Order: sequence, then C-alpha cells, then structure tokens
Amino acid sequence: MEEGSKHVTGGITAPAGFRASGVACGIKKGGNKDLAVVISEDMASVAGVFTTNKVFAAPVSVSREHIKKGTAKAIVINSGNANACNGQEGLDNAVEMCKATGAELGVSGYDVLVASTGIIGVPMPMDNILMGISKAAKKADAVSGKGAAEAIMTTDTYAKEAAVEFDLNGRKVRIGGMAKGAGMINPEMATMIAVITTDARVEPVMLRDLLKEAVETTFNCITVDGDMSTNDTVFIMANGASGVKIGETGKTKRMFAEALKHLTNDLAEEMVKDGEGASKFIQIIVDGARDHKEAKSVGLKVANSLLVKCALFGEDANWGRILAAVGSSGADVDQRNIDVYIADEAVFKKGSGTAFCRDKVEELMKGKEIDIRVELNKGKGKARILTTDLTYEYVKINAHYRT
Amino acid sequence: MEEGSKHVTGGITAPAGFRASGVACGIKKGGNKDLAVVISEDMASVAGVFTTNKVFAAPVSVSREHIKKGTAKAIVINSGNANACNGQEGLDNAVEMCKATGAELGVSGYDVLVASTGIIGVPMPMDNILMGISKAAKKADAVSGKGAAEAIMTTDTYAKEAAVEFDLNGRKVRIGGMAKGAGMINPEMATMIAVITTDARVEPVMLRDLLKEAVETTFNCITVDGDMSTNDTVFIMANGASGVKIGETGKTKRMFAEALKHLTNDLAEEMVKDGEGASKFIQIIVDGARDHKEAKSVGLKVANSLLVKCALFGEDANWGRILAAVGSSGADVDQRNIDVYIADEAVFKKGSGTAFCRDKVEELMKGKEIDIRVELNKGKGKARILTTDLTYEYVKINAHYRT
Repeated sequence: MEEGSKHVTGGITAPAGFRASGVACGIKKGGNKDLAVVISEDMASVAGVFTTNKVFAAPVSVSREHIKKGTAKAIVINSGNANACNGQEGLDNAVEMCKATGAELGVSGYDVLVASTGIIGVPMPMDNILMGISKAAKKADAVSGKGAAEAIMTTDTYAKEAAVEFDLNGRKVRIGGMAKGAGMINPEMATMIAVITTDARVEPVMLRDLLKEAVETTFNCITVDGDMSTNDTVFIMANGASGVKIGETGKTKRMFAEALKHLTNDLAEEMVKDGEGASKFIQIIVDGARDHKEAKSVGLKVANSLLVKCALFGEDANWGRILAAVGSSGADVDQRNIDVYIADEAVFKKGSGTAFCRDKVEELMKGKEIDIRVELNKGKGKARILTTDLTYEYVKINAHYRT
Repeated sequence: MEEGSKHVTGGITAPAGFRASGVACGIKKGGNKDLAVVISEDMASVAGVFTTNKVFAAPVSVSREHIKKGTAKAIVINSGNANACNGQEGLDNAVEMCKATGAELGVSGYDVLVASTGIIGVPMPMDNILMGISKAAKKADAVSGKGAAEAIMTTDTYAKEAAVEFDLNGRKVRIGGMAKGAGMINPEMATMIAVITTDARVEPVMLRDLLKEAVETTFNCITVDGDMSTNDTVFIMANGASGVKIGETGKTKRMFAEALKHLTNDLAEEMVKDGEGASKFIQIIVDGARDHKEAKSVGLKVANSLLVKCALFGEDANWGRILAAVGSSGADVDQRNIDVYIADEAVFKKGSGTAFCRDKVEELMKGKEIDIRVELNKGKGKARILTTDLTYEYVKINAHYRT
C-alpha cells in the first residue's frame, strides 16, 4: 500500500522479541484450538481500543483497567466463550486468567491483558482455561503466531494474520498482527479481536494515538451487519526489540503510522472477505463530504442498508436504494448535487439517473468485488467503508445457530 | 383499544362527506389498480407528516408546499412509480397531477395534495396518469374506500384499511384510513403512504398536532428493515360533516386523539403483519427508560438488529443478541440493571442470565407473535416497537427484484 512497508511472513511473531502459541483446552467442543497467549520478552508499551457497547464483557472491563499503566508482558485470549453477561463471577474469572498467565511468566496479573470471544451468558470453564494457560505459556515460541491466530477463531473460516516490515535509517522494524471476526458477524460469537505486535519502541501515549488513528480508517470502517459486539478489542504491544525508537523524528512517526495502517487495513479486508455468508466484497467510497466523520456516516448507512445489501447479492444496479440510504444518513445532503457510481460507471448525476448501460454495469457486478462511489460535491471529507452483501447463507447461519 | 371508539366498516369513505375511488390506468404492468383519489365534499382541514429523508420524491416536495395553507379538497395518489430522483421533470409532473385533479373538481391545483409510490428514477407516464385522474374523479363515490386502498398497493399482499367511530354528546364521529407498505420494506417501491379521513371539524394547527402525536407512537414505532423511504407520507383530512367540533372542550380533544391513535395503530399493525417476507409479528416493549425517546431508540435498535431478527426467525431464545443491541443503542444503560423477557419469561435479570426453561420459551416462540420486553429500571420512559423477523423470503424478494 504505502511505499516503505512490505509484507513478511510470521504474523504476530514476525517482530523480534515475541513468543506466542495456541492450544486446545476443551472450551470448544470438538478439540479445536481455543486459547492463545502472546508474550513479549521484555515488558512492552501497550495500548487498546475497545467496544463502545454499554453492555461489555468482563475481559473488556478488566483489560481497560490493566492497560491504564501503559505496559504489559502478555496477552491471554480464549475463544468459545465470551465471558459476557456473567455478572461478578465473570469479572473474577477474567482477573484470574490474568493472574494465572502472569504466574507462568513471573509477573503480576496487572501485567497481563485479557480478551474472550464466543458464546454470551455461559459461565467460563475455569479448570480447562487454567490448564490451557499453563500449557500455552510453556509452548509459546517465536514461530507460532499462526497457532495463536487459529486459537482465537470462532466461526471464521480461516485464520487471519499479516506482518509488514520497513527500514528506518538502515534498521528493520516489523509490525505483526492477527484478527478474528468482523463486528458481530458471528452469531452470539460476539467480537472482533485483533492483536498487533511490533519491535519498534513507542511510548504508550503515542502508541495509543497511532493505534486510534489506524483503527479509525480501517477496523472502524468495516461492517457486516451493523451489530456491535460486547467484546470488540484491539491490542497493540511495542517492545522495542528492534532498537528503533518511533517519534524521535517526524519521519519515524510517519513511517510507523503508514506501516501500521497497512497492517490494520490488511486484517480489516480479511475480516470482511470472511464475513458470514458473504458472497461479495463491497467497497463504498464516499467523497465530497463536509469531513471524514460525515463521509463515514453516509458510507456506513449505505453499507448497512438491507435493501442495498440484497441488491448487491442480486447483482442489480439499484441506485435508488443507495440514494435513499444516503438521504437517511443524517448528513446534510442535497440530492441535486449527488453523483453515484457503481463499478466506476456513473448511474446518477445531480438529481437524475443517467442513461448508463445496465447490462455492462450488471456484468461487472457479477465479480466478487464491487465498488460503489458516492460524490456529495460539498466538501473534502472522504471515507472508505468495506462491507458484504446479504445472502441466504447469512440468514441461515444466524437463524439456525442455537444458543 | 380505548373505550369509546369502536370499529366500523368503510375505510376512508366511512366518515360522512368523503368520496373515493381507485382505477387502473396502466402505470403498473398487468392491469392492477394504480391511481386513487380521495375527495372531500367541502374544503377540509388538512395536515401531513413526511419522510425526513434528505433524498425525497417530487410529490413530497409539492405536497409540503400545498399543505401549508391548512386546507385541501382532494388527494391524488399513484402507485407503480415513485416519481423520485426525476429532477425538475418530476416536480413539474407532480404539480400537473394536482392541477388535473383540481380541474376535475373545479378547484385550484393548490387545493390538491399528491403522493406517489413505486419505482425510483423512472419518468412518470403522464398520459396514463392524466387519463386515470379523469376516470377516478368521475368514479369516486361514498362507498369505494376499498378501491382506493387497493390502488395504492405495491408489493403489499392485501389492501389495508380501517375505520372507527365514537360518540360525542350524542353525535357520532368517524375516522377512516388506508395505508400501504411499512417503511422501505418494499424493494425500490419506496414508501409507506397513509390517508386518514374524518368528519370531525378540527382546525389545521390542532389537526397537525394530533396527527403528529398519533404518528409518533404508531407509524413511527414500526420498522421492517430500518431503511427509510424517499416517499413516506401520511395525510389527514377533516371536513366537519359530522357537525362535531374538536377542541371546544378537553374531552372532545382527548376522545378524538384516542380514536385517531386507535386507527393509526390498527393500520401500523397491518403494515408490519404484511411486512416483506415476514414470518413473525414481533412486539418489543421497552420500559424504565429515561423518557419515551430513549425507550424508542433502544427498541428500534433491537428491532433492526439483523442478529435479533435472525434469531426470531430461528425461534431461538438468544437474549445475548438482544442485550448487545440494547447496549449499542446509544442509550446510557447499565447492564447490571437490565431485565429481559421473551414471551413473558424472564431470561436475563440484573447482569446475568436466569435459569429459565428454554424448551418452554422456545415452544412459545413457535407462535406467529412474539413479545420481547426490556426493562432498563432507570426511569419511566416507555415505547412499543413493532417489527418482523428476517427470513430467506426477505432476501429473495429484495435480491431478485430487478430495477
């Protein structure tokens, strides 16, 4: 994406000084991996972004506390149980997961962050989890990022990981990441969870700002069904093992920010591509808005419109539904100034439909990827939203899943 | 519903002094009725509520102007073409529809209101429409409310009408109504349209306030897919033919308001029951909110959650999805104080799931109607939202409809 950062293999264990593992400890039926640890050799700077849902899970509550001091040694994540809506017992269990992980590493529970994903409202099987933590901590090594990525999956159909590398004054810096699920695409399997690691040295406050900035235009610009999870969590750990300090010059900060966006964008795209029941990958570009916020609200409204999603599934160039969604977004728009493009063809210009070739556009819509562009022609605000279509398969998965 | 108002037959022609008709003029393929007129013998007080979509159709623009003076003689409505996104030509055509209707009745075009529903972005077949207006005006009589209700249908599976009557100091007052489509349940067939008639005498300003109040708790509390149409319109005409003046005493106003809510609630329920692809009629009661507005926002978020809708289709007592929707509504809630009931069974109490009998609740969910109750336990605000489940049929209808 940006010059200067290129893909490398290894996911979260691509950067120096990180160990990870994923193990099966019986939270999930069927013996799939369900517990991951990510460990930094040295104490790392950490930052996090969490769900804004007022109904949030116990691990979100605990990690929000632990992350305040800006440093941590490890992250522990389980899948198969979200530890959400479990009252005080849920909070106690989340704390215990941190303590047990810390004990394995000789640090306090406060030096550990925790996340959970899976079913809501079911007590955590703590015997299994404590056994899993012990096993995972012992097994963790510098090449098992993939195993950790597998262990955080719920209904994802494949593990999502990525890593990038860039040069700064002759030294290499790496950023790795893993992720699961987009928004609440997953039935009851609340959660998007992502963990990012880097061997750059970044102060906690700057790390938080850089993470927020990267999340805003990537993870926060994807949607599958508009539902917001109780467990959404993105963590970043920066351990400095590369010897490169970010922020000493504007260039280091800019290059790191670009590489981080490159990585979070990769993971965000993978999450949408693996969206539940999705048959299409949809990119909605909104341009000419007052600002990014307005552009984003318009794009999300179009992306979450059931009628638009159904039309995309049906490969119908139904621009009326796009316009109706734009108009109901709350943005101050004037239909006489709006242009709409589907697959680069102008279908609506300044108040009226154009004489576009429907056959040509609908042929283009048969591809796996469809671009929609909405030009509001009023300002310079811009946003890019990634989403999916709405299919029979989505309804099937989400209707026939049993709690 | 309320004591004092009872159902009568006749729809919009139940009240005295109204004529109506529905005719076929070839806007729709297949020869179904597609043009309706509603005529008051005497000039009537009128009020209206319109879509808040910034992309609104030409008839909405024209009717907003005409309704300002508070009186009208007739309403003309066509189905099969929404006259939306048609630029200046669309506006000219909407004005012409009013003029032509006025000419038939010997009044100005300004004394006529207009609404359209159907496909977006297609020029109006004005020859057919003008022929239809002439035919409909001549055919209109005091018993053909049903014909008008049929002529405004798009993908509705049946015509929706209702009428109520109540006594005021020994004299009878009637309110009649017809409606089509709920929100944008209909593919590209933008629109909920409703027309209400009454033989009460009501000053325009009071009529507008009473209409707004009735719409707020009925038409504005239903949702099928969360999409907002470009054409939504509710008109009310009050011609005074009963000789009863509303507003002279508090009692007359209260009784009229109750009867009007009775009527709009009937029509709203019918619209949801006929929601596209719906297999269930869902009632969501939110109680204990700060105020009605907050309760409504919570209820609409639950009603529009795809995950909740899919679970209802699947008859799964998935309270985790309900809680996640409540938490993401923007309302200031604390999960430790929330209670959730499905089919009158408490499934979640103050932060944790209850030990409810899943078999019993899921047996109850097999019925056509499911009630969900969310108690926020913080105030006295309350709202009742009506919605549907999300089915394969919805996706099918909306994916395979072709523009």
